[in-house]
Amino acid sequence: MDILVVGGTGTIGTAVVSNLQHDHNVIIAGHSSGEVQVDLADPSSINRLYQSVGIVDAVVSCAGEAAFGGLEELTDEDFDVSLSNKLMGQVKLVRQGIDAVRDGGVFTLTSGVLSQEPIEGSAAISLVNAGLEGFVRAAAIELPRDLRINVVSPPWVEETLDEMGADFSPSLPAATVADAYRASLDGNQTGTTIDARNV
Amino acid sequence: MDILVVGGTGTIGTAVVSNLQHDHNVIIAGHSSGEVQVDLADPSSINRLYQSVGIVDAVVSCAGEAAFGGLEELTDEDFDVSLSNKLMGQVKLVRQGIDAVRDGGVFTLTSGVLSQEPIEGSAAISLVNAGLEGFVRAAAIELPRDLRINVVSPPWVEETLDEMGADFSPSLPAATVADAYRASLDGNQTGTTIDARNV
Repeated sequence: MDILVVGGTGTIGTAVVSNLQHDHNVIIAGHSSGEVQVDLADPSSINRLYQSVGIVDAVVSCAGEAAFGGLEELTDEDFDVSLSNKLMGQVKLVRQGIDAVRDGGVFTLTSGVLSQEPIEGSAAISLVNAGLEGFVRAAAIELPRDLRINVVSPPWVEETLDEMGADFSPSLPAATVADAYRASLDGNQTGTTIDARNV
Repeated sequence: MDILVVGGTGTIGTAVVSNLQHDHNVIIAGHSSGEVQVDLADPSSINRLYQSVGIVDAVVSCAGEAAFGGLEELTDEDFDVSLSNKLMGQVKLVRQGIDAVRDGGVFTLTSGVLSQEPIEGSAAISLVNAGLEGFVRAAAIELPRDLRINVVSPPWVEETLDEMGADFSPSLPAATVADAYRASLDGNQTGTTIDARNV
């Protein structure tokens, strides 16, 4: 399969690319690195991405920023960035990419367990992640040509915690999280939130 | 209790006001009617609302627009309106209203069962409703002074379906949906999504 991995240079994205490259043709898109560049907050950048990549069998997104911060400390701009980047950036990647994916292909987005298991500071991220899961449930009903869509919900990633010097639980190595993206590609499910801890 | 009901002139809001007026002091806010006016898409309008109403024990929101339409027919602007109005309008009603609610008070927002049970045309609404539920789960952890927050998830409302000449299932009369808002006010729960069908 030809698979476009957006955010393929990040911690999770790198592990997803390693996993998929064994048996697929992977095109890596990043914000400033990768083979092609894309700014998820800019719809015209998303259009240029699809024009330059051409038709693929699957689109994986491990991309998108959302702001961490206290409920009363987060600014309206923190929410705006989170909504326009991780939430609507991934929604637009789907809406603008429908014609760029072959019949029976699949979109796989990224949310996170803070959707259902919030912590202090996660108000914007929990909103964004839950919104993505709601969108995926709904979009699955309407996608044409047997296209599928799922969203992977990763816990904290061990490599990220190591970088932060933090120790949140639960966490998984990025390579294990990558198995959840493969499950979305290889399975038949659509509209589902795939908890990376249960794959 | 002094209770501010935003969207208190709509179909659900009118039923909520009727229910609460028996034993509470209710202030009705509407977009263009009601005792005070507010535009949820305008943060300065929300600030003026709280300044004019003063301190209350509870804020109920039955307000917020979101766009219904096919996944490929919805425009970016349809999503923008849905996000800035029903989603972020209600989030800002909470964030800007924390100091306007007495210790132990409660915010009660409105999502809808399309969050978990999408239908064709609900992509933007499902996103918004699910995002609200995620925000409420997270905000509950951080609200100060024993403030609580819940979100009511109504099914289709019979009065609305009558107006539309439509017949979606499941549906409930607005007066029954109003019981779910009272449950949020009278109970001790916080961070929960109250399915109006189960109250």
